[in-house]
Amino acid sequence: MNKLNDIFDTVQQRNTHEKEYLQTLKSIIDSLKVMEDDINDSVFKRLCVPERIIIFSVPWLDDKGNTHVNQGYRVQHNSALGPYKGGLRFHPKVSLSALKALALEQTLKNSLTGLSLGGAKGGSDFDPKNKSQNEIMRFCQSFMNELYRHIGPTTDIPAGDMGVGNREIGYLFGQYKRLTNTFTGTLTGKDLSIGGSILRPEATGFGLLYFVEEMLKHHNLSITDKSVIISGSGNVALGAATKTNQLGAKVVAMSDSDGVIYDPQGLDIVTLSQIKFKNRLRIKEYLMHFPQATYLDNPKDIWNLKCDIALACATE
Amino acid sequence: MNKLNDIFDTVQQRNTHEKEYLQTLKSIIDSLKVMEDDINDSVFKRLCVPERIIIFSVPWLDDKGNTHVNQGYRVQHNSALGPYKGGLRFHPKVSLSALKALALEQTLKNSLTGLSLGGAKGGSDFDPKNKSQNEIMRFCQSFMNELYRHIGPTTDIPAGDMGVGNREIGYLFGQYKRLTNTFTGTLTGKDLSIGGSILRPEATGFGLLYFVEEMLKHHNLSITDKSVIISGSGNVALGAATKTNQLGAKVVAMSDSDGVIYDPQGLDIVTLSQIKFKNRLRIKEYLMHFPQATYLDNPKDIWNLKCDIALACATE
Amino acid sequence: MNKLNDIFDTVQQRNTHEKEYLQTLKSIIDSLKVMEDDINDSVFKRLCVPERIIIFSVPWLDDKGNTHVNQGYRVQHNSALGPYKGGLRFHPKVSLSALKALALEQTLKNSLTGLSLGGAKGGSDFDPKNKSQNEIMRFCQSFMNELYRHIGPTTDIPAGDMGVGNREIGYLFGQYKRLTNTFTGTLTGKDLSIGGSILRPEATGFGLLYFVEEMLKHHNLSITDKSVIISGSGNVALGAATKTNQLGAKVVAMSDSDGVIYDPQGLDIVTLSQIKFKNRLRIKEYLMHFPQATYLDNPKDIWNLKCDIALACATE
Amino acid sequence: MNKLNDIFDTVQQRNTHEKEYLQTLKSIIDSLKVMEDDINDSVFKRLCVPERIIIFSVPWLDDKGNTHVNQGYRVQHNSALGPYKGGLRFHPKVSLSALKALALEQTLKNSLTGLSLGGAKGGSDFDPKNKSQNEIMRFCQSFMNELYRHIGPTTDIPAGDMGVGNREIGYLFGQYKRLTNTFTGTLTGKDLSIGGSILRPEATGFGLLYFVEEMLKHHNLSITDKSVIISGSGNVALGAATKTNQLGAKVVAMSDSDGVIYDPQGLDIVTLSQIKFKNRLRIKEYLMHFPQATYLDNPKDIWNLKCDIALACATE
Amino acid sequence: MNKLNDIFDTVQQRNTHEKEYLQTLKSIIDSLKVMEDDINDSVFKRLCVPERIIIFSVPWLDDKGNTHVNQGYRVQHNSALGPYKGGLRFHPKVSLSALKALALEQTLKNSLTGLSLGGAKGGSDFDPKNKSQNEIMRFCQSFMNELYRHIGPTTDIPAGDMGVGNREIGYLFGQYKRLTNTFTGTLTGKDLSIGGSILRPEATGFGLLYFVEEMLKHHNLSITDKSVIISGSGNVALGAATKTNQLGAKVVAMSDSDGVIYDPQGLDIVTLSQIKFKNRLRIKEYLMHFPQATYLDNPKDIWNLKCDIALACATE
Amino acid sequence: MNKLNDIFDTVQQRNTHEKEYLQTLKSIIDSLKVMEDDINDSVFKRLCVPERIIIFSVPWLDDKGNTHVNQGYRVQHNSALGPYKGGLRFHPKVSLSALKALALEQTLKNSLTGLSLGGAKGGSDFDPKNKSQNEIMRFCQSFMNELYRHIGPTTDIPAGDMGVGNREIGYLFGQYKRLTNTFTGTLTGKDLSIGGSILRPEATGFGLLYFVEEMLKHHNLSITDKSVIISGSGNVALGAATKTNQLGAKVVAMSDSDGVIYDPQGLDIVTLSQIKFKNRLRIKEYLMHFPQATYLDNPKDIWNLKCDIALACATE
Repeated sequence: MNKLNDIFDTVQQRNTHEKEYLQTLKSIIDSLKVMEDDINDSVFKRLCVPERIIIFSVPWLDDKGNTHVNQGYRVQHNSALGPYKGGLRFHPKVSLSALKALALEQTLKNSLTGLSLGGAKGGSDFDPKNKSQNEIMRFCQSFMNELYRHIGPTTDIPAGDMGVGNREIGYLFGQYKRLTNTFTGTLTGKDLSIGGSILRPEATGFGLLYFVEEMLKHHNLSITDKSVIISGSGNVALGAATKTNQLGAKVVAMSDSDGVIYDPQGLDIVTLSQIKFKNRLRIKEYLMHFPQATYLDNPKDIWNLKCDIALACATE
Repeated sequence: MNKLNDIFDTVQQRNTHEKEYLQTLKSIIDSLKVMEDDINDSVFKRLCVPERIIIFSVPWLDDKGNTHVNQGYRVQHNSALGPYKGGLRFHPKVSLSALKALALEQTLKNSLTGLSLGGAKGGSDFDPKNKSQNEIMRFCQSFMNELYRHIGPTTDIPAGDMGVGNREIGYLFGQYKRLTNTFTGTLTGKDLSIGGSILRPEATGFGLLYFVEEMLKHHNLSITDKSVIISGSGNVALGAATKTNQLGAKVVAMSDSDGVIYDPQGLDIVTLSQIKFKNRLRIKEYLMHFPQATYLDNPKDIWNLKCDIALACATE
Repeated sequence: MNKLNDIFDTVQQRNTHEKEYLQTLKSIIDSLKVMEDDINDSVFKRLCVPERIIIFSVPWLDDKGNTHVNQGYRVQHNSALGPYKGGLRFHPKVSLSALKALALEQTLKNSLTGLSLGGAKGGSDFDPKNKSQNEIMRFCQSFMNELYRHIGPTTDIPAGDMGVGNREIGYLFGQYKRLTNTFTGTLTGKDLSIGGSILRPEATGFGLLYFVEEMLKHHNLSITDKSVIISGSGNVALGAATKTNQLGAKVVAMSDSDGVIYDPQGLDIVTLSQIKFKNRLRIKEYLMHFPQATYLDNPKDIWNLKCDIALACATE
Repeated sequence: MNKLNDIFDTVQQRNTHEKEYLQTLKSIIDSLKVMEDDINDSVFKRLCVPERIIIFSVPWLDDKGNTHVNQGYRVQHNSALGPYKGGLRFHPKVSLSALKALALEQTLKNSLTGLSLGGAKGGSDFDPKNKSQNEIMRFCQSFMNELYRHIGPTTDIPAGDMGVGNREIGYLFGQYKRLTNTFTGTLTGKDLSIGGSILRPEATGFGLLYFVEEMLKHHNLSITDKSVIISGSGNVALGAATKTNQLGAKVVAMSDSDGVIYDPQGLDIVTLSQIKFKNRLRIKEYLMHFPQATYLDNPKDIWNLKCDIALACATE
Repeated sequence: MNKLNDIFDTVQQRNTHEKEYLQTLKSIIDSLKVMEDDINDSVFKRLCVPERIIIFSVPWLDDKGNTHVNQGYRVQHNSALGPYKGGLRFHPKVSLSALKALALEQTLKNSLTGLSLGGAKGGSDFDPKNKSQNEIMRFCQSFMNELYRHIGPTTDIPAGDMGVGNREIGYLFGQYKRLTNTFTGTLTGKDLSIGGSILRPEATGFGLLYFVEEMLKHHNLSITDKSVIISGSGNVALGAATKTNQLGAKVVAMSDSDGVIYDPQGLDIVTLSQIKFKNRLRIKEYLMHFPQATYLDNPKDIWNLKCDIALACATE
Repeated sequence: MNKLNDIFDTVQQRNTHEKEYLQTLKSIIDSLKVMEDDINDSVFKRLCVPERIIIFSVPWLDDKGNTHVNQGYRVQHNSALGPYKGGLRFHPKVSLSALKALALEQTLKNSLTGLSLGGAKGGSDFDPKNKSQNEIMRFCQSFMNELYRHIGPTTDIPAGDMGVGNREIGYLFGQYKRLTNTFTGTLTGKDLSIGGSILRPEATGFGLLYFVEEMLKHHNLSITDKSVIISGSGNVALGAATKTNQLGAKVVAMSDSDGVIYDPQGLDIVTLSQIKFKNRLRIKEYLMHFPQATYLDNPKDIWNLKCDIALACATE
C-alpha cells in the first residue's frame, strides 16, 4: 500500500529543495494510487530518477566585450521508449528543479504520442530579452560548444521552447553542423529555409481550436461568429487566433506582458503576427496600424472583457 | 571594490540552497579581498561556475534481487591547468552542493602542486556499509557504465575517496577497461597487483607527522617518546600512527565511529591495520589480541585522555 | 572442372575439425556443380571464408556468487549485400563450427529476401535452462559488454534464436542502449512494450501452414477439418498450431523434450501458449487444464499417432 | 550597388590563377545584378568560399610494380541545405580551380531539386585510360584510404562522374565498407548487384529528350520520325539515343573522340551500347557489325551531317 | 640521369602557378643532383606531393557586427618520421603555394632534429594588424572550429609562427580543449600560465648569437664590447638583442616596418621588449623613454649605420 | 583438490580439437598442483579463456592478378596487467589452437617482465615464402585493413614473429598510420629508419649467450676459445653467433632448413648475416665466399659435428 509513498520519500530526502520537481512527482503518484497494486516498483523507481543530467558553464561576450557566464542544462529523463526528446528554454528563472519537473512530464507526454520517443528538457538561465542578435548568436554558439557531445539523431533531439524560436534553433543547428560535420535531424524547429517542417509553430494553437470546436459540437453549438479573447501573443496564442478566424469566429482581445489590445470588431491577426514575429515589437504597436483598437495597460484586465469564449494561451 | 561581492551575489541567487558550496566560495572570496584590485573578474567568474556536472541514475540489484536506484555525480570544476582530477566518494550524505564545494577546493589544491591538473570531485549517495562484496561490485560496474564516457587519461582522472578504496577502484577500473578496451591511467588508487603505485594510502598521515615534527623542531622540541592520540582509524589515522612509531613516539589511543581503544604503553599499529584493512572489522576487535587495552564506547571520549600530542584524523 | 573442389579442399585443410561447417559448404558446392563454369572463383573463394569472427569470454556470477566464464561468438559471414544480420543462440551445444555453418546459410537465405542484408550468426555455450531471471539478466549484460562494439544499425543487426527470446533481447538491448547512449534498430525481436514489431515470433509457423495449404490446393484438396500433429511447442510449433486452427483444421498432438500431449478432439492452443510462453512450464502442465488429454512420456511417440497431416516443428 | 563586385574582387585577389572558378563565379554574380539590393552580402560571402577542400596524395602501383603518386581532391562547397553531394571525376585535366567551379554549380543545382542536399565535387588527375582493371582497383582503394574519413551518409555523399562509373564506384564502396565496417548509402551510383538503383546512368539523356519533345510540342511539332545526330557516346549520349528511339525518332550519327559513325537509316543503339559499356571499345567497332554505316575520322565532322535535330552530348 | 627532373616536370605541370612551391622544390632537387643515382625515385615522388592539405572557410564577426570570411589552411606534408608538426601563420600574404613550400622545408628541417616528427605548415590570410583582442579571439575560435578535427597529439601538432604568438595559441588551445574535452600537447607555444615551456620565443635569437660567438672565436675574436645592429624587433630580433647584452656586447640600432631607433651608447632592450610585447606599440615609442635616441623613418636606413656586427632579424 | 582438473575438463569439452592449446594449459595446471589450495579458481577460470579472439578473411591479389583469401587471427588473451602484447606470425601452419597456446604463454611471460603488459598472439596462414615484395606488401595492407580497428597503443601492441620482420612491420605500420592518421607506438619491431629501436632482433640470441656464460662461470669454466655449433640461421641463431664471437669463442657450424655449413676454423658471421638478411638467400651461398667450408645437405647432421657447446636456435 505504501510502496509509492516510500519511493517518494526517498526521492524527497535526496532533493529536499527541488520544489517543482517534488510537486510534479507527487501529483503523478497521487493519480497512480488507484492502481498501486499493479505498479512494478522496480520500474517506477527508475522513472523517478532522471537517467542523466548535464549542467555546464556557458561563457559569452556581450557587445561591449564584457564576459558573462551562464549555466546550461540538459535533463535526459528517460529513454525506455526512444531517444530523449524535449525543448530548450532560455529564461532567467530556469532552474534544475523546474527542468527536472518538465522533463518528467515530457517523458509521460511523449509516451502517449505512440512515437518511439523518450523525454528530456533543457536550457539556460540566460535572459534573451534586450539582447542584440549578435549576443544571442554568440550565446547559442557557446551553449552548443558543450551540448553537441550529448545529443544526436538517435541519442537526444532537442526542440525549441520559451526563448528558443526559429532564430535560436538556427544558430544552435549551425554550430552543431559545423562541429560535427554532419547534417542530421538532431534539432527540430528549424526555419523552413534550412530544412524545417511547415506549420509547426502554430500547431498547439490550431489543436486548441479544433478541441474547442469539438466541444461546441458536442453541445450542438457552432463556433461561427463567436467572439473570442485569447491571452498571450506568442506561438500558441497567435496560432489559436489564426485558426479562430479560419473557423469563422473573431478574436476581440489579445495580450502581452505589458498590456491588452481590444477591438470588439475583431483584431487583424496578420498584422499582429508581423508585429510580434517579424518586427519583434510589443503588442501596443498594433494601435499604430489600427487606432480604433483600445489598449489596456494591465495584462490581467483581459479577463474582464466581454466575449463568448476565453482561451488562456500566455505563458504561466 | 564590490567586484567580488557582485560575483558572489550572482552565484548565490542561482544556487540559493547549496549551503556548502556558497560557504566555500565565500571563504575564498573573503581571503581574496586584500588583492581585489588585481583580480581579473572575467577569469574569476569562470572559476565560480563548474565547467561541467554530470548527474546520473545508478540502478543496481542487491543480493535478494531487489532493485535500487542511486544517484551518481561527477563535478568537473575547472580544466584551465590540465585534465580534471579528484576523488570519488560513496557516502549517503553525498550531495551536489557538497561535491561542488569539494571540487572547487580541488581546483585550488591541485593548482598548488605545480602539476598540470584541473579539479573535480564525484561519487554517489550509495552507502557501502553493510553491503556484500558482490553488491559493491555490481554497484561499481553500474556506476561505471555511465561514467566511462566522461573520463579518460587526458579528460578526467578520478581517484578514490571516502568509501572508495583499492577494492572499489579495482571494480571501477575493471569495468572501464572492459568497456573501452584500453588499459590507461584513467583511475588512480589501484591495488599494487593491478598496477597501482606504492604507499599512496598512507601519504596524508605521513605528511601530517612530518608537519608535526617540523613544528616541534621550530620550538626546539623533539617528537621522540611523545605520547600521541589519534582520532579515527582510516587511511589517514593509521598512516599517521605508523609514522608516529617510525619517528620514535607512541600512539596511546585511536577510535572509530563506535568507540576508543586506549593503552598508555602504546598501541600495536600493525595489528590494528590488519583488523581494519584486511579483516574489515570494528576497532573493538583490538581487545581480542591485546586484552590489556581499554575500550571506551563513546568516540568523543578520546579527547579526555592524557597525551602530549592530539591529532584529529577522523572524518568530519 | 575441379575449381570448386579445389576451393573446398583448401577450406577443409584449414578447418579439419569443423564438421558442421564443412558439411554445409559441401552441400552448397554439390548443388552448384551444374553451373560450375559460370562461377567466378575469385568471388566464390570469399564466400567460403567468414569476413570476421569474434570469440569472447563472458564472465558472470550466479545467484550464489560463484564465477562462471562462458564463450560468446559472433560470426559475421558476409556483407556484400548489406549489414550483417542473423540470430543469437544460447545453448550448451553452440560451437564455432556450427555457427559458421548457420552464418553461411544465413548469407544465402538473406540474399533471397531481396532486402539489403548480409549474413551472420552468434551466441554462446551458456545454458539458459534452470537459470533464474537475474542470472539470465547478468549473463546478457556481460555478453553485451563486449558485443556492443561489434554491432550497430549499419554494421550488424542481431536477432533472437534458440534460448534468446523477447526477454533476452530486452536485456541485451537495454545494456546496448546504456553503453552506446543511442536508441537504434540494432537488435530485432524486441518486446512490443519497448518498440518491437507485431507478430514476428509466429511468422515461421504461419508461413509453414500457408505452404501446406498451397500444396493441398495444388492437389485439389482442402485443409478444412484435417487433423494435424505438430512436433515441438516453441515459437514455430505454436505459430503453426495457431494458424492451423485459423484455417479450419485441428491440432491433435504436440510435444516438448519431455513428452507428448494428445487429444483427438483437438488441443486448446491458447491455453498451451500461456503454459509455454507466459508461465514457462512443461507441456505436461496442459493436463491440469484439460484432463481428457493423453500424455505420452516419450517425445518420439508423437509420430505413431494417427493424423491427416504431420508437421515437424521441434528443434533438430 | 558595388556590393557584389566588391565580394568578387576579394575572391579574385585571393585566387588569381583559378580561371575556371572566377569565370563561374562572375557569371553568377552578373546574373544576380538585377536583384543586388535584395542580396544579404553576409550570406553571399559565404557562398563564394568553399566550406572545406581536402587535397591528398594517392600513391599506387602499376602492374609492373612502379610507384605513381596522383593528387586526390574533394571540394565540399556548401552544406547549408544538407550533406555535401556531388560527383567524383578521374581525368588528367582535373584541377582545383575546375573542381571549385563545378562544386559551386553543384550547390546551386542541388538547391533547385528541393531535396535537402548541399554541393560538392571531387576526383583526381589520375587518367583511367589504358589502365588495367587491377590498376584501377588499386587506385580506387588507395584513393578511398584517405577519402573515407571525410565522407558519410550525413556528411558527404559522392557519386560517379567522368571516369568514375559503376565499376569504380564498386571498388570505392568496397574499400569504404571494409574500412568503416558499415554498409550505408555513402556513395551513389552503385551497380544493381550491390544495391544500386535502376536507370540512373541514362537519366540525363532521357531528360534531354523529354525537354526536346516539350519544345517541339510548344511549336506544334512532333518528334516522330525526326532524324537526330548526337555527339558523344557516353552515358548522356547513349541515354539520349535510347530515348530518341523510344519516342519514335531515329539516330543517324554519333561520335567518340576518334571519329563519327553515320547511317541515314538509323543506328542500332543496343549494339552500340554493348560496344561502349560492355566491351569498352571505340565507336569504330560498330562497323564490324553494321558495315553499311559510314565512319568519319574527325569527330567534329558530325556537325556537317544532315539531320532534323542536333544534340551536343559529348564532354566539353 | 633525368629521374629527378622528370619528377619535377610532373609536379610543375600539375601546379603551374605555385611559384614558391616550385622554386623550393627545384632548389632541393638541384642540391640532390650529386647523389641522384642513390635516390629511390619511388620514395622521392611521395616527398614532392603533400600527404594532405585542408583548406577551409573561416567566417567571423568584427566588432561592428560585419561578417568576414577568410581562408584557413593546413598543409600536412609528410608523416614518415612522426606526427605532422609546423607553425600556423596569420598574414594577408598567406597562400597555398607559400605554405606548401614552407611545409616541405619543415619536413626536411624536422628530420634533421633527430626527433620523431613529420612536417606541416598552416595558417590564414587573416590580417591580425589593427584588430581588437576580441576580434582576434573570435577569429581564432572560428579557425579552430574546423581545424580541431584534423589535429591531435599523435596526428598533427601546430605551433605559432608570424601573427600567431602566445595570445593566439591560448585562444586556439582554449577552443580545442573545449571542443575535444581533452587537455593534451596538441599545440605548442602556450603561455607559461597555461602550461607552456620556458624560454621558447627567444630561442632562435639566442641561437644566432651563439653562432656569431663561435664564428668570432674561430677567428680568435671576442664579442665583448662589440657594437651590433639588429634589423627587426620581433621574437627573433629581441631574443638576439637580449643575448647580445648577456654576452657583453651592445645593441646600437633596431627597426620595425616604420623606422629605426639608434643610440651609439646602446639601446635598453628590457624597455624595448615591454614596448613591443606588453604594450604592442611601434618602435618609435622608445623615444618617449629615451629621448637621446635617434629615430630614422626608413627601416632600410639601418644598414647605413656604423657597427661591428650587423644581424638581419626582420621578416623577409 | 580437483579444482584445477575440473576447470581443465570444462575447457577441454569446449575445445576438443585444440591439441596445442590443451597441452599448454595442461602443463601449466600440472605445475600449479603444488599450490592448488592457494589458487583463486574464480580468477584462474578467466585465465583459461582468451578475453577476445578475432578471426578475419584477408583477400589479396598475387602478381598475376589471381585472388587469394587467407585467414588472419588475433588472440587477445589477457589484459589484467596491461594492454595486450604479442607477436604476429605469418606461416602456413598457423592455426587457432596454436595461437591460443602461444597467447596463453605470452600472458605468463609478459607478467614476469615486471612491465604493465598483457598477453596476445596473432598472424595468418599466409606463406611468405616465394612471394614477391609487392605481394607481401599487398597482403600486409589487406591484413591491416581489418586489424587496425582492434589494436592501438593502449589496447593491443603487436610485434613481429616468424615471417614478420622489419619489412613486414614497415608495411603494416604504414597502412595503420594511413588509416588512423596517427603516428603511435602501436607496432613494435619497426626499422631504425622509421623509428624502431636499436638491437632488438639480436636480443634473444644475445640473452642465450649471456646465460651460457653464466652457467660456465658457475662451474668455473670460461667461454673463451670454445667451439660452438648453432642450429638455425634466423634472428635468434645469428644473434647467438654474433655474441659468441664477441665473447671470444668461435662458431663452427650453422644450418637452415636445407643443410649445414661447417668450418672448424670458425664461420664468418658478418658474411652469413648479409646472405640471410640482406640478400635473403639460402645458407649454402656461404660457400661462394668461403670455399674452404663444408656443406652437409641434411640439417639434422649438424648434431653429429664435434664441438664444445651446442645450441639449438632453429624454429621447432
